[in-house]
Amino acid sequence: MLTAEDNALLTQVGPDTPMGTLLRRYWIPFLFSSEVDADGAPERVRLLGEDLLAFRDTSGRIGLVAEQCPHRRASLYFGRNEEGGIRCIYHGWKFDVAGACVDQPSEPEGSAFKDKTSIVAYPCVERGGLVWTYMGPEVEPPLPHFEWMELPESHVAFTKRMQYTNWAQALEGEFDQSHVSYLHSSLKPSSTGPRSLVDRIRNDDRHPVFDVVPTSYGVCIAAGRNAPDAQRYWRSTQFLMPFFALTGPYGPDPKRPWRVWVPVDDENVVVLGASFHPLRPLTEAERTDFLTRSSPSNISPQFREPPSSKPFGRFRPLPALENDFFQDREVQRTQTYSGISEFWAQDAAVQTSMGMICDRTGEHLGTSDLAIIAIRRRLLAAAKALREEHVVPSEINDPDCYLVRSDAVLLPETVPWFEATAARRRVTPDVNPDCV
Amino acid sequence: MLTAEDNALLTQVGPDTPMGTLLRRYWIPFLFSSEVDADGAPERVRLLGEDLLAFRDTSGRIGLVAEQCPHRRASLYFGRNEEGGIRCIYHGWKFDVAGACVDQPSEPEGSAFKDKTSIVAYPCVERGGLVWTYMGPEVEPPLPHFEWMELPESHVAFTKRMQYTNWAQALEGEFDQSHVSYLHSSLKPSSTGPRSLVDRIRNDDRHPVFDVVPTSYGVCIAAGRNAPDAQRYWRSTQFLMPFFALTGPYGPDPKRPWRVWVPVDDENVVVLGASFHPLRPLTEAERTDFLTRSSPSNISPQFREPPSSKPFGRFRPLPALENDFFQDREVQRTQTYSGISEFWAQDAAVQTSMGMICDRTGEHLGTSDLAIIAIRRRLLAAAKALREEHVVPSEINDPDCYLVRSDAVLLPETVPWFEATAARRRVTPDVNPDCV
Amino acid sequence: MLTAEDNALLTQVGPDTPMGTLLRRYWIPFLFSSEVDADGAPERVRLLGEDLLAFRDTSGRIGLVAEQCPHRRASLYFGRNEEGGIRCIYHGWKFDVAGACVDQPSEPEGSAFKDKTSIVAYPCVERGGLVWTYMGPEVEPPLPHFEWMELPESHVAFTKRMQYTNWAQALEGEFDQSHVSYLHSSLKPSSTGPRSLVDRIRNDDRHPVFDVVPTSYGVCIAAGRNAPDAQRYWRSTQFLMPFFALTGPYGPDPKRPWRVWVPVDDENVVVLGASFHPLRPLTEAERTDFLTRSSPSNISPQFREPPSSKPFGRFRPLPALENDFFQDREVQRTQTYSGISEFWAQDAAVQTSMGMICDRTGEHLGTSDLAIIAIRRRLLAAAKALREEHVVPSEINDPDCYLVRSDAVLLPETVPWFEATAARRRVTPDVNPDCV
Repeated sequence: MLTAEDNALLTQVGPDTPMGTLLRRYWIPFLFSSEVDADGAPERVRLLGEDLLAFRDTSGRIGLVAEQCPHRRASLYFGRNEEGGIRCIYHGWKFDVAGACVDQPSEPEGSAFKDKTSIVAYPCVERGGLVWTYMGPEVEPPLPHFEWMELPESHVAFTKRMQYTNWAQALEGEFDQSHVSYLHSSLKPSSTGPRSLVDRIRNDDRHPVFDVVPTSYGVCIAAGRNAPDAQRYWRSTQFLMPFFALTGPYGPDPKRPWRVWVPVDDENVVVLGASFHPLRPLTEAERTDFLTRSSPSNISPQFREPPSSKPFGRFRPLPALENDFFQDREVQRTQTYSGISEFWAQDAAVQTSMGMICDRTGEHLGTSDLAIIAIRRRLLAAAKALREEHVVPSEINDPDCYLVRSDAVLLPETVPWFEATAARRRVTPDVNPDCV
Repeated sequence: MLTAEDNALLTQVGPDTPMGTLLRRYWIPFLFSSEVDADGAPERVRLLGEDLLAFRDTSGRIGLVAEQCPHRRASLYFGRNEEGGIRCIYHGWKFDVAGACVDQPSEPEGSAFKDKTSIVAYPCVERGGLVWTYMGPEVEPPLPHFEWMELPESHVAFTKRMQYTNWAQALEGEFDQSHVSYLHSSLKPSSTGPRSLVDRIRNDDRHPVFDVVPTSYGVCIAAGRNAPDAQRYWRSTQFLMPFFALTGPYGPDPKRPWRVWVPVDDENVVVLGASFHPLRPLTEAERTDFLTRSSPSNISPQFREPPSSKPFGRFRPLPALENDFFQDREVQRTQTYSGISEFWAQDAAVQTSMGMICDRTGEHLGTSDLAIIAIRRRLLAAAKALREEHVVPSEINDPDCYLVRSDAVLLPETVPWFEATAARRRVTPDVNPDCV
Repeated sequence: MLTAEDNALLTQVGPDTPMGTLLRRYWIPFLFSSEVDADGAPERVRLLGEDLLAFRDTSGRIGLVAEQCPHRRASLYFGRNEEGGIRCIYHGWKFDVAGACVDQPSEPEGSAFKDKTSIVAYPCVERGGLVWTYMGPEVEPPLPHFEWMELPESHVAFTKRMQYTNWAQALEGEFDQSHVSYLHSSLKPSSTGPRSLVDRIRNDDRHPVFDVVPTSYGVCIAAGRNAPDAQRYWRSTQFLMPFFALTGPYGPDPKRPWRVWVPVDDENVVVLGASFHPLRPLTEAERTDFLTRSSPSNISPQFREPPSSKPFGRFRPLPALENDFFQDREVQRTQTYSGISEFWAQDAAVQTSMGMICDRTGEHLGTSDLAIIAIRRRLLAAAKALREEHVVPSEINDPDCYLVRSDAVLLPETVPWFEATAARRRVTPDVNPDCV
């Protein structure tokens, strides 16, 4: 549980809030490169409570600018994206991707007024199919270095969706290892083929030991379960500041997961996820399986749906609290624990049902919540240190510290997991250790 | 008219408000027994501003618990109702109807944590097909004793609907005897058969004398009209603290009415009504007539409609202020006073049109509003006495004082109505006096 | 740009606000005479934040009364309009167009209570097909005198629509002469026929000189452009206090425009417009062209659509911010500057996109915004003078000062426009000077 003060601090991300100020120090991914075409329609974006527009200019550069024209405050969303900038349809004022006013046809030629009428613009870079922005002060830090950034397109699959809750309760769900045994479980074992070793281990030891290790980049979290032959099954996930997650991999020749929970405002979060293989292209089956589990079925990965007039309009799922996430009580009675059919929606349902901003003053955290406690502490401490002592977190200027992996291994029960798996958690080129 | 302070006091029912505190001292009916099945889906309930869930456990007991799981605040609505309790789908925590945490599979076996993680649960009892709860402090008082509680199912018909207004203006409408001559009237006398005696009396004396008598259980209200042969027609209704109503009966061998206006929150009220005969089963025609007059036509008495994701989802009528209650101006011009077709909707329309919470500082009450004035006074005085002097109203511990009836009789004009009809207003087994 | 204080002062119109107090000193047009029939249904009206009902009584008089019955606050909207007044359907209280309670059947006959229960009623007059009301204190001033008021119906066409923004940003758009070259422009010149002189002038001089002259009734605004043969093209529009607009006329034998922006509340404005010819009936083509440009296509000029349950229900356009005003990006790329098909919607789109109440603290006004600056100053100065010095604007008691016209002429470039066109701007009977 948190005090009301700490709950507000954790959850509020607008300009001038402590957490919002901290988050603005990090690069933020928010857009697929494929969402904007040169001289095409702009996309509505809201990040950390700010209304913005993303567009790609004639030469292919990405702009992310304030939505309102500084002249008379009309929305640039209706604007014309042409010849190196976005032009307001009211009076034709035009801004380039850096926010400079490059044309002002309604004013006298040669007027110096143009130079006084720039627009807020945040620098953007593209890397591996994603667009990132930096909304903070001073010179932008280096981009965090993630393993998938150097991979060819064929090796990576992406998903994206909105969730109608505060970002923090969604992020917390990512590191809640114990809920897998309940929320996502089936009532009967699969009838196709023998049960896997991991399934057997999870069934035989339903009370894993949790271990939480602070790291330079965030928190490394492990769940340990008894396994046959005096072994322990250690599954470790990674929280990387301030909103990145590497959940656990599965099996030999594993695909690797990556996900980020970007606060849209205090009541919405946009989730971008990736599944990739470090050494080879994903098969069609792997790609389909990933999209099925992580994407709302009513959102097309090809973005066929027309966007709504809201930010991230293309990525708004239909299943929501107002339709009970289409829970089917008969399915819940006979087939699955939740009765909610889509995997991502099972998580979204419980997280959304906590209320827009979960009231953590009414929580009762148990031993299975150690990871969540550690992540909150890390975020709160960083926000307070920045506010009170002007300390910028060190990982921001250490991009290669993000080159880590999650893990799942069997170890002799006397071996300490953190030390024994250190090399497996580091990204090593051309190596993708088998997991369990 | 009320001061702004008294209007707030009368209308606000949340936790820690004076009126909310008073109402929590009474048993509250809110659910039909038939709405919840053993191990079936829970029902969303909101009472006095609190979000709750009702469910029936494996052994048939009714639970009414806070909606949010005390662990991480997920909604138990999505939960599994099985083996003696409702289980959260997030981590499997399970609570029985008394609110005790009876399983906590995500925590180590034998942990004492379970005992610290109970959930708010309000005691419930079932009587005569209705479920009642007590949301107050200390030991629950006896259930109020209503005449219909001992009758077989065949003798009683029930209705239920939501109304989208504050509870107080809805309750007040119940004791507004004069509006019957206007809101519910037709423009031409019925063409089928001769006019009834009551119709003739009402037509000949449109200015009844009102009399209001405080009682141990509430207020007894009578309207007296001149009648033939030096008689007076006395029609008396009963207000029973804090939200029960017995409106007037009609004719020989009368059916008896009962209704309760339960505050859902400050902006919604749920109305449960009954029509019963003390001595015999209702005929099919009587049952149909009652349901037609009191139930929205788009709400099936068999609850065929799927519930929405809002509290009391099954009982939300379609006619509402946003569609003008489907008022038909041509019907209003030529056939009925209101142009609104459903009887209940005529009342709901005027009550809803006052605004969510009627601003009583702008009222001008006349002689026809004596009953409303008396009821407000009773409620306000009780709320203030409880808040300021910790006085619990005496009727709460006197369940048999609720064994009263409404009445409609002809008396010689010199006879005092209250004294003369005392025996008729008491519930006497095997007796159902004819009315006029 | 404005300070936050002045922005609030300019935009807030409710009772007791400085601008609301000023606006209540003027006659306000709000209804077509044809919208209400004798003894017909009342119309929901909201003006300056007050909920009202308009109705026409049996004798043809117009009433504009508070929506809530003073008895128990039920809405008179559901009421019966009959025999000289509107009657509440709850208890039959009846009010005439002057607000007097003329029947109170639920109270004893002869009671003096009736005289204490009047309802707020604002005086109304009809002139030239429009209904005007005066919501201010003291005796009502004379009605402002507009040229079209004396014309036969055949000479005038009217439109009406709601816009979902604060009134001030909508009114400002009316005097924004420079946006015509952008927002409303086509990407290619019309292929039918040679380009007009005005088109050629506008194309050759895209930086007109703006001139703004305070007048007794408001502000006269001119844009001057270079024209062939050492001439200047002067186009002048008129702002008449507090919300009237005469935009510029076109060509020989011109039709004359008139428009008014009436604040419904702080977040909505209702726009009434007229096009008229001072000397002859409008042709069918002229009438159709005007309605096409100024009326939403989904609002029928014959009011065939049923009203919604909101004020001005018949005049609520479907195109809105939530559907991006049906902007078509392909049309925007290839045909029109905006991609929005209806002329009025092009204005509504940019004005609505500023936010409900435009935040003028973030503006950057240029030389093309001189008219807007002058109009704001006039309104703010009048509101402050009334609040601080109790000065009632002089134009209110000078109805004939409203007998002016807008203009468009060619003048030798050395001739001062304001003096040279004085006679053209005055309304002279039987004269309608050709324009350019």
